[in-house]
Amino acid sequence: MPTWTPKNPDYEKLVREAFAVEPPMVLIGATMEKVEPGFVEIHLPVRKELMTSYVPVVHGGVLAMIADAAIAQAAYTLAEPGGLGVTLEYKINLLSPAGGERVVARGSVIKPGRKTTVAQAELYSVDSDGKEKLVATALGTLISLT
Amino acid sequence: MPTWTPKNPDYEKLVREAFAVEPPMVLIGATMEKVEPGFVEIHLPVRKELMTSYVPVVHGGVLAMIADAAIAQAAYTLAEPGGLGVTLEYKINLLSPAGGERVVARGSVIKPGRKTTVAQAELYSVDSDGKEKLVATALGTLISLT
Amino acid sequence: MPTWTPKNPDYEKLVREAFAVEPPMVLIGATMEKVEPGFVEIHLPVRKELMTSYVPVVHGGVLAMIADAAIAQAAYTLAEPGGLGVTLEYKINLLSPAGGERVVARGSVIKPGRKTTVAQAELYSVDSDGKEKLVATALGTLISLT
Amino acid sequence: MPTWTPKNPDYEKLVREAFAVEPPMVLIGATMEKVEPGFVEIHLPVRKELMTSYVPVVHGGVLAMIADAAIAQAAYTLAEPGGLGVTLEYKINLLSPAGGERVVARGSVIKPGRKTTVAQAELYSVDSDGKEKLVATALGTLISLT
Repeated sequence: MPTWTPKNPDYEKLVREAFAVEPPMVLIGATMEKVEPGFVEIHLPVRKELMTSYVPVVHGGVLAMIADAAIAQAAYTLAEPGGLGVTLEYKINLLSPAGGERVVARGSVIKPGRKTTVAQAELYSVDSDGKEKLVATALGTLISLT
Repeated sequence: MPTWTPKNPDYEKLVREAFAVEPPMVLIGATMEKVEPGFVEIHLPVRKELMTSYVPVVHGGVLAMIADAAIAQAAYTLAEPGGLGVTLEYKINLLSPAGGERVVARGSVIKPGRKTTVAQAELYSVDSDGKEKLVATALGTLISLT
Repeated sequence: MPTWTPKNPDYEKLVREAFAVEPPMVLIGATMEKVEPGFVEIHLPVRKELMTSYVPVVHGGVLAMIADAAIAQAAYTLAEPGGLGVTLEYKINLLSPAGGERVVARGSVIKPGRKTTVAQAELYSVDSDGKEKLVATALGTLISLT
Repeated sequence: MPTWTPKNPDYEKLVREAFAVEPPMVLIGATMEKVEPGFVEIHLPVRKELMTSYVPVVHGGVLAMIADAAIAQAAYTLAEPGGLGVTLEYKINLLSPAGGERVVARGSVIKPGRKTTVAQAELYSVDSDGKEKLVATALGTLISLT
């Protein structure tokens, strides 16, 4: 993974503060655990409200929510001061049922750009022993509005 | 749009009952409004908890949740009795900010199959006058587990 | 399908002339048959060089080539005079084996924009009686460089 | 990257022989250079016929062809003896103009499965000094027909 240089020295503070008050992330209980240049890690404790009704696995739409957030926030770590990006599109592949204690989403920038940035997310379910299993992978594009 | 023949005469009841108790759909407040062979329509009243923190528009991850559900449930209307499908993957393009009173997601099957089914979803934001604006389009694949 | 208004009165001439000399389209033998505002139709006669080695169907990568072209050219019909767009990304779902006499790709704009345009393509294989079968669907994003 | 165990001891021979006679790969001049369990590397010498007409870069549809092939062949290295997979879908993000002497596509399996396999491809343009630049990334799904 390449090393990116942030354009905004306050990138970590901005990402953490923005994420902490993002209503849908609060609603599902996702928290921002790591913020580095071009990289973020989001945690989501697994609970009944986030599972499907027919099997006890996390709903694919919930996985998409944190994949989307991981992609967008990874890109946001490299934004200009005052810059804002919006997600144009993304794709997610669901690889395995997501159970365990929590889901961890790792977002990382593949190609930053002045106009558009491409980033990916890998999602893991983590059991009580800390063992990780890859459950989804996503790939998306953001556009700068500034 | 082609007309599909359901393989399960109880398809409507099954889809409506499954959706009504799907915890993440209950969490965000989405309801199943129309169920036809190869087609569903989901409504999501817009509220603060579903919006981003920086602009009053519905979060892209929330749109993905109902896009995912619309794709999966449209496919489910054509499943065999006892059949179950899981989403392999999907892609969503966010086209316009989603505000208004509610978001309507229309899922429709493009190509049903014994093993895999491809379906799409179109999402509209609807204002208080009932005027619709296209806000997202999605395309996904389900696989039959039976 | 909505009706779009072209910004360049010469859009048809530009699209047809650009396509006719596009080397990879010449290489595979694809021709531009219809050009309307926000819409194009590309034809590809099926021949051995475009098929897979193990079954006589058109290679998925070849289908992707004309899907890509149909998406890009549909967007190009709505470009500003002097404007140029490049494809950021697209996704294709292969639905059925593509055989027959030719493949027809219909590209249409879903959402035009000043910065980005989203368009889709539907690909059909056509047999000697003119009967069409849907073989692929694609969805992509272009960005304006001007 | 995890290490995968091939189910067919002859996987390398099969992949190399199948690729060498694949007509569309012959047409564009792509060659299979490396074959390992869950991994392949395809080379494509850059020439005029593969470029766009307006700027001297490799056409996005041509990049999609080798991305598609890299994804499919990486999956094929892990197939059962006699097994055959077909591509269900894939997505490609074009990151930078592809020029140079050749394009190298590296396909690698993310998640193999009995029914479906998910794989990715990274495409690089390589100049005369051997310097690589990432030009595209792709993510796709194959289904086993056996």
